Amino acid sequence: MHSIMNKTANKQIRASILGASGYSGVELLTILLKHPHVTVSKIFAHSSKGQRIDTLYPHLRGATSLLLEEYDSNAVSGSDVVFLALPSGEAMSIVPELIASGKRVIDLSGDFRLQDPAIYEEYYHKTHSTPEMLLDAVYGLPEVNTGAIAVAQLVANPGCYPTSVILPLLPLLASKSISGGGIVINSLSGVSGAGRKASLDLSFAEIDGSLKAYRVGSHQHIPEIKQSLEVFAGEHVSFCFTPHLLPTTRGIYTTTVARLAKDISEQEVCHAIEAYYASSPFVRFIGNEVPNMKHVLRTNFIDIGVKVDTKGRTVSIFSTIDNLVKGAAGQAVQNMNIMFGFNECEGLL
Amino acid sequence: MHSIMNKTANKQIRASILGASGYSGVELLTILLKHPHVTVSKIFAHSSKGQRIDTLYPHLRGATSLLLEEYDSNAVSGSDVVFLALPSGEAMSIVPELIASGKRVIDLSGDFRLQDPAIYEEYYHKTHSTPEMLLDAVYGLPEVNTGAIAVAQLVANPGCYPTSVILPLLPLLASKSISGGGIVINSLSGVSGAGRKASLDLSFAEIDGSLKAYRVGSHQHIPEIKQSLEVFAGEHVSFCFTPHLLPTTRGIYTTTVARLAKDISEQEVCHAIEAYYASSPFVRFIGNEVPNMKHVLRTNFIDIGVKVDTKGRTVSIFSTIDNLVKGAAGQAVQNMNIMFGFNECEGLL
Amino acid sequence: MHSIMNKTANKQIRASILGASGYSGVELLTILLKHPHVTVSKIFAHSSKGQRIDTLYPHLRGATSLLLEEYDSNAVSGSDVVFLALPSGEAMSIVPELIASGKRVIDLSGDFRLQDPAIYEEYYHKTHSTPEMLLDAVYGLPEVNTGAIAVAQLVANPGCYPTSVILPLLPLLASKSISGGGIVINSLSGVSGAGRKASLDLSFAEIDGSLKAYRVGSHQHIPEIKQSLEVFAGEHVSFCFTPHLLPTTRGIYTTTVARLAKDISEQEVCHAIEAYYASSPFVRFIGNEVPNMKHVLRTNFIDIGVKVDTKGRTVSIFSTIDNLVKGAAGQAVQNMNIMFGFNECEGLL
Amino acid sequence: MHSIMNKTANKQIRASILGASGYSGVELLTILLKHPHVTVSKIFAHSSKGQRIDTLYPHLRGATSLLLEEYDSNAVSGSDVVFLALPSGEAMSIVPELIASGKRVIDLSGDFRLQDPAIYEEYYHKTHSTPEMLLDAVYGLPEVNTGAIAVAQLVANPGCYPTSVILPLLPLLASKSISGGGIVINSLSGVSGAGRKASLDLSFAEIDGSLKAYRVGSHQHIPEIKQSLEVFAGEHVSFCFTPHLLPTTRGIYTTTVARLAKDISEQEVCHAIEAYYASSPFVRFIGNEVPNMKHVLRTNFIDIGVKVDTKGRTVSIFSTIDNLVKGAAGQAVQNMNIMFGFNECEGLL
Repeated sequence: MHSIMNKTANKQIRASILGASGYSGVELLTILLKHPHVTVSKIFAHSSKGQRIDTLYPHLRGATSLLLEEYDSNAVSGSDVVFLALPSGEAMSIVPELIASGKRVIDLSGDFRLQDPAIYEEYYHKTHSTPEMLLDAVYGLPEVNTGAIAVAQLVANPGCYPTSVILPLLPLLASKSISGGGIVINSLSGVSGAGRKASLDLSFAEIDGSLKAYRVGSHQHIPEIKQSLEVFAGEHVSFCFTPHLLPTTRGIYTTTVARLAKDISEQEVCHAIEAYYASSPFVRFIGNEVPNMKHVLRTNFIDIGVKVDTKGRTVSIFSTIDNLVKGAAGQAVQNMNIMFGFNECEGLL
Repeated sequence: MHSIMNKTANKQIRASILGASGYSGVELLTILLKHPHVTVSKIFAHSSKGQRIDTLYPHLRGATSLLLEEYDSNAVSGSDVVFLALPSGEAMSIVPELIASGKRVIDLSGDFRLQDPAIYEEYYHKTHSTPEMLLDAVYGLPEVNTGAIAVAQLVANPGCYPTSVILPLLPLLASKSISGGGIVINSLSGVSGAGRKASLDLSFAEIDGSLKAYRVGSHQHIPEIKQSLEVFAGEHVSFCFTPHLLPTTRGIYTTTVARLAKDISEQEVCHAIEAYYASSPFVRFIGNEVPNMKHVLRTNFIDIGVKVDTKGRTVSIFSTIDNLVKGAAGQAVQNMNIMFGFNECEGLL
Repeated sequence: MHSIMNKTANKQIRASILGASGYSGVELLTILLKHPHVTVSKIFAHSSKGQRIDTLYPHLRGATSLLLEEYDSNAVSGSDVVFLALPSGEAMSIVPELIASGKRVIDLSGDFRLQDPAIYEEYYHKTHSTPEMLLDAVYGLPEVNTGAIAVAQLVANPGCYPTSVILPLLPLLASKSISGGGIVINSLSGVSGAGRKASLDLSFAEIDGSLKAYRVGSHQHIPEIKQSLEVFAGEHVSFCFTPHLLPTTRGIYTTTVARLAKDISEQEVCHAIEAYYASSPFVRFIGNEVPNMKHVLRTNFIDIGVKVDTKGRTVSIFSTIDNLVKGAAGQAVQNMNIMFGFNECEGLL
Repeated sequence: MHSIMNKTANKQIRASILGASGYSGVELLTILLKHPHVTVSKIFAHSSKGQRIDTLYPHLRGATSLLLEEYDSNAVSGSDVVFLALPSGEAMSIVPELIASGKRVIDLSGDFRLQDPAIYEEYYHKTHSTPEMLLDAVYGLPEVNTGAIAVAQLVANPGCYPTSVILPLLPLLASKSISGGGIVINSLSGVSGAGRKASLDLSFAEIDGSLKAYRVGSHQHIPEIKQSLEVFAGEHVSFCFTPHLLPTTRGIYTTTVARLAKDISEQEVCHAIEAYYASSPFVRFIGNEVPNMKHVLRTNFIDIGVKVDTKGRTVSIFSTIDNLVKGAAGQAVQNMNIMFGFNECEGLL
């Protein structure tokens, strides 16, 4: 596997993006255009084919003159890595041919994150077309899965909510600091998480001044959180996860309350997290302070803080990310850096 | 005509609203539901027929259980007044039959504001279906047209931008304080002015952080401003009007720069406006202070302030309204109050 | 006690407000100015004494010309009711003399909400100056305490967070539908809850795009929630309450997760709440739907919805209010209506 | 002069920032920390001395551990360039000693932008302490003053509004396309332009939903605009400039209406601007399209568009920048790049 890394470490790679006209896709493009080791060769978007991306996203004027094209499998023959920023359900019909042709693939959709096709069907309301590939995909959470990502051909880039939830919980579950049961997770996300689309519910006049929970008990990130916590912490977990829609464009803020599993101090809780992420450049653990969403916007950082209530035997865990960066495009580039032997932070600081 | 007023002054009237599911329509409904002399008998909306209005607009839960119905002409037989909060182009196909059946009508669209069908066609990109009615409609700007409104059968409720522009300019034109030429008008409006619709351009993620001019030189309110200023001030005017879209839901702010026509002091300019609106309860003239949009939101007031530059020989005029209230629904109710002999402020303070 | 109500039911009462220049104070003034049975006789504010309130809050121009005065006890001799919208710690030095002089008092601060002076001191970091009055004050949550409020001389108006938390939980605790232990409460509030002040932390540029928890484990509303739940539900409760600051001006949104105490269906949970508030005009229970903060803004309503997870044996409860209305000024007027025998909704719909 | 450039072109320079704790200062620091040819050696802030900058601005956590220090003249002895991001009035007391000690200085305040000390006093309400230095300072508008900037010891970095106003007007004045008289300029700015401070007027609850003009006729950027237009276009100009405060954090949007000086087409107007800025990497001229503020946020670009009204003989000019980047810190770095012979875009794309 070492060979994969050596082949690419010092050279320029070529990347293509499917679904480049969505918010995650264009965020990815914006990052890759400044990446010192990447050339973006092709960008695809069915709905806007033939248009220049800087017409759709004028902030890119002067940075690129790339045209959105209609995807077909030949079009990516020159690419070293293919990113899919497509809606869930569309990625699974394209990934197999990319894999067959030897491409390395980073899929930002939910299509290859779950290992059990039955659960995929339950939460995504679709039958998975290539269930046999689910176990081959590597869950692309770099802080806990670096080795597998480095040699993966297919990386399933984590969901935005799961990234904000899993990272702070893992060290506490792994160290048996908290109980795996009765965890209560409240997350709030800016509206860009819902994607770029014409929708009355997402219109400014409707969102401004609003706040509400949604998809209570049925959000597709629930099984992703469960699976990842159980796989990486090796323990059964049960939790109540409630997503909310914030009247802001970017950002996720997650407040998690868990029961302390044993007689443990705030200092020990802090140490468990600190030690776990000692070499993770994008985790900023701030001890018993409370993070502010504003400070991670437009960055690939996750900021994490904790407060232990020794009397109530609970720990409150606060974590925040930019849903389009660490929750999507930035994390995808972080995975790409690892896959191709670049510095993990390249293009992201 | 006195008879019309006497018939209705002390009794309860019945009102119906066509287009009640849009932002102006529901604002109108919300005001009328609290109006002491009005019973809302019917509300109509083609697209949402059969639904309760408080399902679409849950802030109304507990206030009404009215159902949105499909309009047909018999449905309003019991109404004393019919409001049309329909898109321009739709009102003109319905107004004639309402007028023929003797209803009093307040049309919030642009269909009956312009007197010249050729200009209507130029700016609305449609042929007017009943050009012969254009001269019968009364322009519903209560502060300057009360008498005609009181006896009108058909009132054309002014546009939001024109309301904010015409009211501060009229006293200065009428008093020959300013030149009719070379007036520069900059207006900014919240996005609710664009109506309730699924549109990518109006989505939160697109509007948040944005600001831009639009329809420069071609906005349909340009001829409405011109006609009203010339009719009511009796003078030819020329101006450059530029509308902008603000990243906020409600409110219009207009900054107008005009050339002083003669050697005139700030005090005289102030006096001209003050005197003109001495008996207008919804005009709050604040002299040489600058108004703030925040203070008129959700009210039927227009706040006006001026600054005279005696050296530069110009006057800067600042005016602000809530586009959905004084710029639409509130002004419509003000017109209704005048038409039916109620106190002009009833239901609006 | 019946006499108190009869004396006032059909007459006009006179009200004064201490602390009228703050956000709660001016909200209260704005409501009272439209109340059919109230004349506002005096308004007080130490910091802005001598200024007209409509200079500080220009939205009031035309509605009142009242001057802010420096308070002294003689100044309220003509008032039937005195509202205190002062910071916590200031009210307790004024309330005793008002009570002694026979005034009926509604205190919007936290000074008379807690029964135990030791707990007051722990959370408010001040020694209570009149601990003997704490048990005389009536907690002004109209939906559960009407009788006592009707005859009270001193009403402690509830805090904003507690109002949003207590109302949905009480029916479920009282009906033994949920366990009193392990409740997790996440609340988010707009910044007007922090009051009107010059503060870098509350400046637009700092709040815009931000979101964060604050005063975790130490917020002064924690003991208020605990006391009220235990007093009114008659059961010991333990919970983790986390307040967050939202980048919006108004509104509170609370998501509470509790463990179902017994084998109970969503329908039964809904019935428990519905029955409890069958005659409460400001509680809008919407069953298993999720409320949206937008729909209660500028109203005295609390919207409540629930979702039962029968497999996980939890119930998620969503509640939302306007912090300045149902969470402060509106609820104070609701209390006044009850105290003086007016219709509970007078001036509030 | 060539020597200055050659000395520095390929090496690393050391920079210090006075006033690093303000919004412009920290924006400058954020840019410089990523600049490939710059090491930030010292940062100063009187009010926050002794604190780490990443405590005040946690988005910088992980990027720097610099401490804010109290400035004294010895502290910058090792710096090649000193940036002053101080309030106007403070810079002029420090610049002379920096100049005397041979430092190259970029002053972001208004202290050295005006050539006439009497006008400085009129608009800044202070007597200038070193009027003799005013003519030595070079106005740092890189697009029109590159040569002078390259060899300057003291650069006066332009104001935010002037940058947005001057750049689009210059080509039209220089080409005699528009009249120098009767220009009407409306500008809107986000609140970060008012600086970082505890102020009721800038608090979230006051700004949210607000919009207003301010300092009409007296804003200190009026003489700066006038001087720059007259110096660089060589023509007398008269204009009415009105600044407005937007309920947003960043961004300036300027709409300017000018009279066409001669019979000239939209195409010719466009050509005049295009030709003028053919080699200016940060000017994005988009012809007869209307720019959107959103697309320049967090960039050093100015987007410019025009609309010609051939019948009305006017041209409307739309320009937009990020007030903290092209309007302050970004432009300062652009000037530094030119002064030290780096690529003009270094660190800014």
